[in-house]
Amino acid sequence: MTTAIQAQVLASVAEIFDQQVPFHNLLDLHIQHYNIHGVEVVVKMKPQLIGNIHQHILHGGVTATVLDVVGGLTAFSGLVASRDDWSLDALQQRLTTLGTIDLRVDYLRPGRGEIFTGTGTVIRAGNRVSVCRMELHNEQGSHIAFGTGTYMVG
Amino acid sequence: MTTAIQAQVLASVAEIFDQQVPFHNLLDLHIQHYNIHGVEVVVKMKPQLIGNIHQHILHGGVTATVLDVVGGLTAFSGLVASRDDWSLDALQQRLTTLGTIDLRVDYLRPGRGEIFTGTGTVIRAGNRVSVCRMELHNEQGSHIAFGTGTYMVG
Amino acid sequence: MTTAIQAQVLASVAEIFDQQVPFHNLLDLHIQHYNIHGVEVVVKMKPQLIGNIHQHILHGGVTATVLDVVGGLTAFSGLVASRDDWSLDALQQRLTTLGTIDLRVDYLRPGRGEIFTGTGTVIRAGNRVSVCRMELHNEQGSHIAFGTGTYMVG
Amino acid sequence: MTTAIQAQVLASVAEIFDQQVPFHNLLDLHIQHYNIHGVEVVVKMKPQLIGNIHQHILHGGVTATVLDVVGGLTAFSGLVASRDDWSLDALQQRLTTLGTIDLRVDYLRPGRGEIFTGTGTVIRAGNRVSVCRMELHNEQGSHIAFGTGTYMVG
Repeated sequence: MTTAIQAQVLASVAEIFDQQVPFHNLLDLHIQHYNIHGVEVVVKMKPQLIGNIHQHILHGGVTATVLDVVGGLTAFSGLVASRDDWSLDALQQRLTTLGTIDLRVDYLRPGRGEIFTGTGTVIRAGNRVSVCRMELHNEQGSHIAFGTGTYMVG
Repeated sequence: MTTAIQAQVLASVAEIFDQQVPFHNLLDLHIQHYNIHGVEVVVKMKPQLIGNIHQHILHGGVTATVLDVVGGLTAFSGLVASRDDWSLDALQQRLTTLGTIDLRVDYLRPGRGEIFTGTGTVIRAGNRVSVCRMELHNEQGSHIAFGTGTYMVG
Repeated sequence: MTTAIQAQVLASVAEIFDQQVPFHNLLDLHIQHYNIHGVEVVVKMKPQLIGNIHQHILHGGVTATVLDVVGGLTAFSGLVASRDDWSLDALQQRLTTLGTIDLRVDYLRPGRGEIFTGTGTVIRAGNRVSVCRMELHNEQGSHIAFGTGTYMVG
Repeated sequence: MTTAIQAQVLASVAEIFDQQVPFHNLLDLHIQHYNIHGVEVVVKMKPQLIGNIHQHILHGGVTATVLDVVGGLTAFSGLVASRDDWSLDALQQRLTTLGTIDLRVDYLRPGRGEIFTGTGTVIRAGNRVSVCRMELHNEQGSHIAFGTGTYMVG
């Protein structure tokens, strides 16, 4: 079950990350789903995101960007889900401290495809720091990359 | 000393990475210097690269992109520098296999500034795999991020 | 199906890693299972492996050691499994080049327990370089740590 | 300048890590120097630390252990150095929360040598989380490995 405050905050965060982050707009990166169970971040292939013109593959920086956004949102949804008595103020305060401490990206195969979807899970849930594992796959289910990230959440 | 073939290949790679990679064009990412001693990659702040509209800071994905490009170019220049009898064909062949295996980014402080410069050094030089450490700093010399990356070079 | 050469090489590697590596003997680290599907590495808690005397937990260096051994053996079994026409000589040659390039360990919770088991999977299989994910859990199934490692296999 | 409380706490931590950690005793790992400027951790080659009997090189798990110990002590000395008005109680409390969140080890060359020394620097100093870079070299100054670690310090 999701409380009204949890739902409200996550919907608001999804809207901000989907609409109001300039670099996400530049990439056409979108937050497809976001709730206390996790997040789905999507980028569609377009010519400007290409890293290798001969092979028509996604630039590794786009992959890293999607995984980092997935990790941050996953860490935050884990924090939101960890208590059902959050106040709106407390969560908004936590959101201001959300940030990536470190990120590892493992590039598994060339980023070929049309739609790239990033998902993640919390592997260490803390009140101050959370660690997440993320993955990126294309529309055919091929794993393009894995990520591991450590995030400040408080 | 740099041989004519080394100089030619690195100049050609610099030109490709500076001009012909669509994602670099989208970000206005430029290869400022590139020779057998290393690389300098530059991105100027512009509104579309912002990750946090309230704080006007660079998106972490831009940081990761610059560090990854620096790492790949550093690994390749290290390979080029490792022998002075490379043929043009051999180096062009090696360039086609250049790729990131894994990348770690350590975000040290918010990406505030106007000009962000990435540099790197090879810490493990191999004939197949090289490992590099990279850093990003702004025009005032503040370290924004460190990176560590493992690259396929053959 | 496992060929006779695959079985022979993996059995021999298991025996070496289980019996003939001095540091494994010091830790009482054992290779419980090893075949083309993967590896199980086991360490039992004993006083000398403790990192914190007040809390009676495994030293993080033991965790890193187990994960690194798991990763190397997982990478090698993946290489062995990748072809069914390996010669004995070729695999023995490959074994001499097996080595860790880089390793990330994510410590999830204190290493409490009596028996610690490490397992892994190949996430990027290459002819020269493989990347593995590893995990360590105690006898009650608690995840103690995750690992990600890049290994030279040729 | 170092305050009396800073000096007392660091001396006490050095003594504990040098003498009272069972796994450090097993390895003969010693804290050579420790003050607000950093730490020097030393391990001497001995037969039980060998990972490859044919090549007589240090096991990668020993390398990881030294780097992790260096990182934790570096992070803690950075915290101690960050204020000159710490109370003894406050620092002892912080010590109980000291722990590794994640660790990356880059293995640069085989661990040949007689005396291995680990040192480190803080690259991100926080009140809750610090990030350090560490290195291990042998008595001839060869770099054996680099490390990067994220530590909980409060």
